[in-house]
Amino acid sequence: MTERVREILSWYKSENPGVLTNLARMLNHGRLGGTGRMVILPVDQGWEHGPARSFAPNPEGFNPHYHFQLAIESGCNAYAAPLGFLEAGAADFAGEIPLILKANNHDSLADEEDSWQALTASIEDALRLGCVGVGMTIYPGSALRMEMYEKVREYAEQAKAAGLAMVIWSYARGSQLSKKGETAIDVIGYAAHIAAQLGATIIKVKPPTEDIEQAAAKKAIEGAGIPIGTLQERIKHVTDCCFGGRRVVIFSGGAKKDSDADVIDEITAIRDGGGFGSIIGRNCFQRSKKDALELLDKIVKVYGA
Amino acid sequence: MTERVREILSWYKSENPGVLTNLARMLNHGRLGGTGRMVILPVDQGWEHGPARSFAPNPEGFNPHYHFQLAIESGCNAYAAPLGFLEAGAADFAGEIPLILKANNHDSLADEEDSWQALTASIEDALRLGCVGVGMTIYPGSALRMEMYEKVREYAEQAKAAGLAMVIWSYARGSQLSKKGETAIDVIGYAAHIAAQLGATIIKVKPPTEDIEQAAAKKAIEGAGIPIGTLQERIKHVTDCCFGGRRVVIFSGGAKKDSDADVIDEITAIRDGGGFGSIIGRNCFQRSKKDALELLDKIVKVYGA
Amino acid sequence: MTERVREILSWYKSENPGVLTNLARMLNHGRLGGTGRMVILPVDQGWEHGPARSFAPNPEGFNPHYHFQLAIESGCNAYAAPLGFLEAGAADFAGEIPLILKANNHDSLADEEDSWQALTASIEDALRLGCVGVGMTIYPGSALRMEMYEKVREYAEQAKAAGLAMVIWSYARGSQLSKKGETAIDVIGYAAHIAAQLGATIIKVKPPTEDIEQAAAKKAIEGAGIPIGTLQERIKHVTDCCFGGRRVVIFSGGAKKDSDADVIDEITAIRDGGGFGSIIGRNCFQRSKKDALELLDKIVKVYGA
Amino acid sequence: MTERVREILSWYKSENPGVLTNLARMLNHGRLGGTGRMVILPVDQGWEHGPARSFAPNPEGFNPHYHFQLAIESGCNAYAAPLGFLEAGAADFAGEIPLILKANNHDSLADEEDSWQALTASIEDALRLGCVGVGMTIYPGSALRMEMYEKVREYAEQAKAAGLAMVIWSYARGSQLSKKGETAIDVIGYAAHIAAQLGATIIKVKPPTEDIEQAAAKKAIEGAGIPIGTLQERIKHVTDCCFGGRRVVIFSGGAKKDSDADVIDEITAIRDGGGFGSIIGRNCFQRSKKDALELLDKIVKVYGA
Amino acid sequence: MTERVREILSWYKSENPGVLTNLARMLNHGRLGGTGRMVILPVDQGWEHGPARSFAPNPEGFNPHYHFQLAIESGCNAYAAPLGFLEAGAADFAGEIPLILKANNHDSLADEEDSWQALTASIEDALRLGCVGVGMTIYPGSALRMEMYEKVREYAEQAKAAGLAMVIWSYARGSQLSKKGETAIDVIGYAAHIAAQLGATIIKVKPPTEDIEQAAAKKAIEGAGIPIGTLQERIKHVTDCCFGGRRVVIFSGGAKKDSDADVIDEITAIRDGGGFGSIIGRNCFQRSKKDALELLDKIVKVYGA
Repeated sequence: MTERVREILSWYKSENPGVLTNLARMLNHGRLGGTGRMVILPVDQGWEHGPARSFAPNPEGFNPHYHFQLAIESGCNAYAAPLGFLEAGAADFAGEIPLILKANNHDSLADEEDSWQALTASIEDALRLGCVGVGMTIYPGSALRMEMYEKVREYAEQAKAAGLAMVIWSYARGSQLSKKGETAIDVIGYAAHIAAQLGATIIKVKPPTEDIEQAAAKKAIEGAGIPIGTLQERIKHVTDCCFGGRRVVIFSGGAKKDSDADVIDEITAIRDGGGFGSIIGRNCFQRSKKDALELLDKIVKVYGA
Repeated sequence: MTERVREILSWYKSENPGVLTNLARMLNHGRLGGTGRMVILPVDQGWEHGPARSFAPNPEGFNPHYHFQLAIESGCNAYAAPLGFLEAGAADFAGEIPLILKANNHDSLADEEDSWQALTASIEDALRLGCVGVGMTIYPGSALRMEMYEKVREYAEQAKAAGLAMVIWSYARGSQLSKKGETAIDVIGYAAHIAAQLGATIIKVKPPTEDIEQAAAKKAIEGAGIPIGTLQERIKHVTDCCFGGRRVVIFSGGAKKDSDADVIDEITAIRDGGGFGSIIGRNCFQRSKKDALELLDKIVKVYGA
Repeated sequence: MTERVREILSWYKSENPGVLTNLARMLNHGRLGGTGRMVILPVDQGWEHGPARSFAPNPEGFNPHYHFQLAIESGCNAYAAPLGFLEAGAADFAGEIPLILKANNHDSLADEEDSWQALTASIEDALRLGCVGVGMTIYPGSALRMEMYEKVREYAEQAKAAGLAMVIWSYARGSQLSKKGETAIDVIGYAAHIAAQLGATIIKVKPPTEDIEQAAAKKAIEGAGIPIGTLQERIKHVTDCCFGGRRVVIFSGGAKKDSDADVIDEITAIRDGGGFGSIIGRNCFQRSKKDALELLDKIVKVYGA
Repeated sequence: MTERVREILSWYKSENPGVLTNLARMLNHGRLGGTGRMVILPVDQGWEHGPARSFAPNPEGFNPHYHFQLAIESGCNAYAAPLGFLEAGAADFAGEIPLILKANNHDSLADEEDSWQALTASIEDALRLGCVGVGMTIYPGSALRMEMYEKVREYAEQAKAAGLAMVIWSYARGSQLSKKGETAIDVIGYAAHIAAQLGATIIKVKPPTEDIEQAAAKKAIEGAGIPIGTLQERIKHVTDCCFGGRRVVIFSGGAKKDSDADVIDEITAIRDGGGFGSIIGRNCFQRSKKDALELLDKIVKVYGA
Repeated sequence: MTERVREILSWYKSENPGVLTNLARMLNHGRLGGTGRMVILPVDQGWEHGPARSFAPNPEGFNPHYHFQLAIESGCNAYAAPLGFLEAGAADFAGEIPLILKANNHDSLADEEDSWQALTASIEDALRLGCVGVGMTIYPGSALRMEMYEKVREYAEQAKAAGLAMVIWSYARGSQLSKKGETAIDVIGYAAHIAAQLGATIIKVKPPTEDIEQAAAKKAIEGAGIPIGTLQERIKHVTDCCFGGRRVVIFSGGAKKDSDADVIDEITAIRDGGGFGSIIGRNCFQRSKKDALELLDKIVKVYGA
């Protein structure tokens, strides 16, 4: 157990030993084990965007075993997926990589202004599949966000009582926000803070832009002279919003990037801003396994540096 | 136990022995027993379309015993029906054919744009009636699909915990789709994938057409050069969407066909595309028993070839 | 135990001995005991139409004891009423007549296009009051029918697990139907079938007219040459819709009739069509006890002939 | 135990001894003990109209102890109030007066066309506070009445199972009724009947006017020649609607009256019409204690005569 | 145990010893311990207004430990915060200050006319974190207030059964009120009374203005000559509305004040009107710790005088 991991665990003293153990399992697994940084492979795009859009670019991805193997071979800290995808491999790869069950999902067969995520798995499912944690999404900014908070809170209570880590995907979205506002620095900071207040062990948000959505936030940020000009500075602000840096917050990879250099630049800024890592899906599984392993190797090297 | 059945069971390693046993019971029953292919007789049309539309063409069908007998005599793998129909024969034909309790239903006394299915039976009902599985319908494309996913997921968890197989009828339908979109290849693939992600043991969809409903799916399918010109190719894509072929997916017979040759052509394409079988109702019970047995004999011979 | 009652019980082999016993209690009670026919006195009109409209014509009916006595003295098979009315006499007349607790109700203080019935009693109420069964209403044709099916199914499961018979009043009604459609032969047949599929032990519908509401049903009925010209023929079709005659279906008396001859004609047609009896309220309790006993005597004689 | 109280208890033979005991406690308490008549002090106006409107006229009423004392000193049969008001005195005045916990409430901070009452206490609260009964309001005539019936029924079942009396305030109100219709004789009779059917031990309604709201009721009442010209006659009809007089029905005092003579006239008509008593709040606690005791003395004397 | 604290506890005789103990813990803690007055530090603004608006003015506040320390060092009676903020320090500061878990919350990512608060923690959370009480908000005046009353009541029942004090933030707000009406004296009095009726141990409202929102209340207040001209008089009226002074009612600090003198004037009026203390957040944690300690010192001195 490294000192850094001990330090991170010390921020979670109110959690039971089960949660601490499972958080430590993730922090200590894979090539970044012990560094306090994480790279997680998430594959819920089949649910979210449909199988053709998700896996046609690299058809090996239709097979759920492929993603287990990719996460294991690249040395990720954990692999996150919906119920069916985990059921299809959890026994085959038992004990080889920490698993996070993504327990709510949304499809794109409709185009609602205010969406929500259906509960698609239970805490008991996570336990029977040997997972270390449960992942759930909230949409701050949706008119339905309040109901989502309530469900996620209920799951968080059950998950943590069962010793599972709670990972909250906090994605600002919905009729209450402008399109640019979805990644505005104030909104991302607020979304991350809500996840932390709901009791998240790990928080996942998108990398923020320098837009500010809400006038009152603009006044506060500018009044206090909080720097948000660079991604690194914005990452720093988001970690502040996560209890002054006392919660693990990681960043999604977003849409498929044009060049690996773009990916690595973003990762470097996350690292330097104090972010705890990345959760990166499409940029990995939509290319060939060889290319994906190369990219993940670069990412791991940035975080491990 | 044939090697093929063992192979199929190997895809479900995360399931408990109860689910594996009941899946094996279906795979090993009837004339196709051991081949890894299935023909299931479903009779929920009394609920869905009303008794007159369903049974007037062959009035023997008003009597629920008739359908048990038809499924048994034709050598089907299983018989699926709603609560009342199973209650009316489960004791009389106990042990003669694997039963699937269709646990949600919808009538056609109204013409809603976005429909859903009412819960019309419970897991306990399935157990007391000696069933091997529970069947439920979802309507991806309906504005009410999310609530349906949640209910079906809940049932799936309970059913599988009780050792029952979970069969999901995934029928794209509703205000979010065009009429043609209901059977478009991308939508059928997406619908099948959702069922698999919800934890289905067996997935039932309609045979897909070569329409593509969503622009992003069109781009992905064409970009990757996935062939969808023939039914056989489309069936192959649907099995890919079901975890790269690692889930049993079967196809409905659809509307009553004009000629048996049309039925057999479709069955042949399903077989050659890697589909696992058919669930075929109206084309069987709406003709005389003699004719139905002849048609089922032909179908079984195609799948058994 | 007569052969006919044994035969009827043989259709319910999937039910537990408790349900069979309570069904037998009704079939064996009163003047029609053992014939396989039933006359049931229902008094829920106080709830449905208000006490003044219901009981002013014969003010003895304000007193709940009156209806127990009428049902007992006339030799009915059972007496059905809402919670309060049964509470007000169940102890006083304990063991004198089989009781059915009407467990959902609707008032006429509003004039909604799509109505539903509120749950007004529980299975536990039925058990503590010594009932043989529970009665509930569904409104196929209402926009709220699906929620009603779900509640009734839940009650049916609980009732039958507790050994109680489940009686479903299936009254087509609501915005999805024309006024004439509420008693159209296809709609009545469909409504009766739904009740049977929901697991009803006994089904109650209105006598059907020769209207056909749905075009697809018209085509099926005419295509198969199903005769519906006379009430007797229509009753026969309704019994077919109830699992080919393998479920007990009884018919309501409808609105107060002008002459007893009209009532008797209807009863005769029900009998000759294979209906299992009548559930007849307003035509009994809204006349003097002497007149009511005379009418019920005539009805019993028709069914017993 | 007087013969009259025994007679009243004999109407409730289906209830368990706990309910009978608590009903007897109310009937035997206070100055009217044993007469079969009741006067109950209700103080829920703080909730319903706000504290200023309720208690400013007699500021002693801000203190919850005042109302306990008023009910005790005036010799009422029982005191009814919401959770907070009972919590604030139940221990201080334990055993001095039967208590009824008003378990749902509504404020007047909004002006909804169709209102309902929020659940503001539980059966367990009633038990821990030593109450003899639970009181709840329904609004027949509201578009939300059905949901209210369901909740009240649920509470009634729990309350009576725990040996508590169930008191239902049945106040016709809502978009489905005209303003005059709220106290029309047919509506009051219907509202009282619904409460009785829901299993009420004691029913509370407003004194009816001679208006008739519904055409069908008008026809029935006039057709049967039911006299409704005087308040006494109307009270008689309401008791008829309560199971032919076999349920205890009491009447609210309504708005603050101009003169005591008006109050006494109303009480006299209630008594002579066969009503079982009054539940009278604002006319008591909004005057000085001395004046209130004088008025209650007059009322008790009328009922005890 | 001082006489004043004994007196306050004597108003809560219906509560179990657990609730009395936890109320006493708050009353006896800190610099005001034993005086019967309280100052509570609440920090839920991260949830309610977002982290940037809340903590940018004094960035130490991003760290949840800061607020524990501020409450402890200033000698507050208790510290109140949402789940995440308490989880982040409850173990670190165990036993150093009474904690109140704010169990429902609302964000300002949307601008709804009628808002509500999502459940964001449970009673079990409060127990596992060692809290003395649970805090919840209601919005009298919102069209959704009824649902909020029901949830808060449910929590109050559970909390008090577990021996926890129940603190209700009663904030009038919503489409049913004018903007000025939110702090009008009649509305604040009504809101406080509702909280007391729901079973609150401690009630929190805003300081009232001399506006009167409702005509009927205006008539009652003026008719009775209740003085409301000064804040002190209005505070007195609010304590009257809280069961004639028999419930602990405290007042929020409201928006950040321009000068400390304004704060102290308000505190003095609260004290002289008989208010039990203050719950004051933004005016403390949005300035430097040194300034906050100075202000809190002044406030404590006013209350302790």
